[in-house]
Amino acid sequence: MRVSFENLKLQLKSVLLKYGFAEDRAELCARIFAENSRDGVYSHGLNRFPVFVQLVKDGLIAIHATPASIGRYGVTEQWDGRNAPGMYTASIAMQRAIVLAKENGMGCVAVKNANHWMRGGTYGWQAADAGCIGICATNTIANMPPYGGATPVLGNNPLVIAVPRQEGHLVLDMAMSQFSYGKLQEYELKGEKLPVAGGYDENGDLTKDPAKIRATGRTLPVGFWKGAGLSLMLDVLVSSLSGGRSVAEITAEGTEAGVSQFFLCLDAGALDESVSENIINFTKRSVPLEDGAEVLYPGERTLSTRHRNEAEGIPVNEAIWQQVLAL
Amino acid sequence: MRVSFENLKLQLKSVLLKYGFAEDRAELCARIFAENSRDGVYSHGLNRFPVFVQLVKDGLIAIHATPASIGRYGVTEQWDGRNAPGMYTASIAMQRAIVLAKENGMGCVAVKNANHWMRGGTYGWQAADAGCIGICATNTIANMPPYGGATPVLGNNPLVIAVPRQEGHLVLDMAMSQFSYGKLQEYELKGEKLPVAGGYDENGDLTKDPAKIRATGRTLPVGFWKGAGLSLMLDVLVSSLSGGRSVAEITAEGTEAGVSQFFLCLDAGALDESVSENIINFTKRSVPLEDGAEVLYPGERTLSTRHRNEAEGIPVNEAIWQQVLAL
Repeated sequence: MRVSFENLKLQLKSVLLKYGFAEDRAELCARIFAENSRDGVYSHGLNRFPVFVQLVKDGLIAIHATPASIGRYGVTEQWDGRNAPGMYTASIAMQRAIVLAKENGMGCVAVKNANHWMRGGTYGWQAADAGCIGICATNTIANMPPYGGATPVLGNNPLVIAVPRQEGHLVLDMAMSQFSYGKLQEYELKGEKLPVAGGYDENGDLTKDPAKIRATGRTLPVGFWKGAGLSLMLDVLVSSLSGGRSVAEITAEGTEAGVSQFFLCLDAGALDESVSENIINFTKRSVPLEDGAEVLYPGERTLSTRHRNEAEGIPVNEAIWQQVLAL
Repeated sequence: MRVSFENLKLQLKSVLLKYGFAEDRAELCARIFAENSRDGVYSHGLNRFPVFVQLVKDGLIAIHATPASIGRYGVTEQWDGRNAPGMYTASIAMQRAIVLAKENGMGCVAVKNANHWMRGGTYGWQAADAGCIGICATNTIANMPPYGGATPVLGNNPLVIAVPRQEGHLVLDMAMSQFSYGKLQEYELKGEKLPVAGGYDENGDLTKDPAKIRATGRTLPVGFWKGAGLSLMLDVLVSSLSGGRSVAEITAEGTEAGVSQFFLCLDAGALDESVSENIINFTKRSVPLEDGAEVLYPGERTLSTRHRNEAEGIPVNEAIWQQVLAL
């Protein structure tokens, strides 16, 4: 079944109000969950909402806490997220980086004690909507082995890069594992193999079987040693710039809370948009591997899903929808 | 055979002086070529030097040109590299980003009309030596197909991230292809297969055979669609921030000259180094796949190669060494 964006947002908001959220935070968090579903990222939209509410009930999210700047050095700021709702903290941190960039050409906000921001792309779209290049990253609990190692000690630490563009922003939102656990589960539930190898089986061989990867816990970093190295560097950046927890410390606590993030903006007001256009056009000229196939730019599929879901309503899992209505 | 760092640098410098380089530029360029060999990146050290000299002879590198700032917006600057030697331009651009970061917390220099910087890691080590986090990227000629495409329209656009650390900087230096053409050739000459799939054969199947990949030109982006997307975003960043050539325009001209780059620094003076230590220690705790194997942090192999080559001399290809001595 499908529901409208407005209805989805309204229902989510009413649940958050019921659990004590202030009006403006309920609005912001509900909007972001609804946008994630609208943009096709169902795993971090409605489908994740009951988990979020459970964390609120368990007292693991400080719904009234106010993230605050605790230090500034030139155009870079350190913030304490104080375990406020992750989408709220990330939104105001990126908003602050936007203001710093408009004033100084560039600005950076590093946040400790942040909570899960759901879809990283949200904050890339936010920066691009404000006319800025936005770059942000978060760390996670350990969920990926390094190259040459068998046990998970790296996070899949998503990296987001967004560049504004009139006909649709360029937004790259990539985790450092080839597939997230959510994606592996999605393929497993459908009884499908992965399109490319996503990790290792019990014999240490690369496999496209999502169940085998979930069993070994040996997910594959993008590009083997390269994605593993980038994951480590992102962890160093977010946790040393913010003074917050690293993957090691998050993992030691056992729950993916109190993570570290950074938000970097460059004012794109003076940029010539024809540069992006030419790059996109050139990339699409690559001879497609299959008839009728098209090469997409980062963010293109998100935008077409958004337009379809705005026109036709957002597809919802009926069981989860009923569960949310009963919250 | 092996030669000392000082001897290698001296010989390279004398060649550059002979071809008209000013003293300080000859010193800087010779030092960087020698350091690249010393650090084990032979493909961009001595082995590349004859190619560089040929470009100088052909007038494709403006050996006396002075790169200059042509615009400033807050802490971000736009430079014109004026086709000066790539290592020279990259060194002074990163140096300027370091100064901007020391003054403002963060600084960025975007350069158009730059030339090949040889090893990107050079400028990461430079930033880290100065107590800064350094992030830089360059575009290249098209040498990699996008996901879903058969013909190359993306550059392998290297990305460098460096974080200072007393016992050895963390320096990630990664191109967006799983293997560079230089690496493919190295494996082919040794008659070896790649350790993991590096591209596609004539049937469109993934292969570890370097010769087949070189024949199809279908190199593999790290993580398939992910590295392809990151490559495109880096091209957009370097060329729109600098106002310089994109991969499309470099490719249209047919030679990898006049490329676009950016250099971003954050002052790391106040960072707590124990964060990096803890992350490295945790990562190394991953159970190794093979007895005696060790998980390495980005930059660790470079440093151990450097120490060995400083102690024992730098291994040189004798034919190329004789060729350089005769230049």
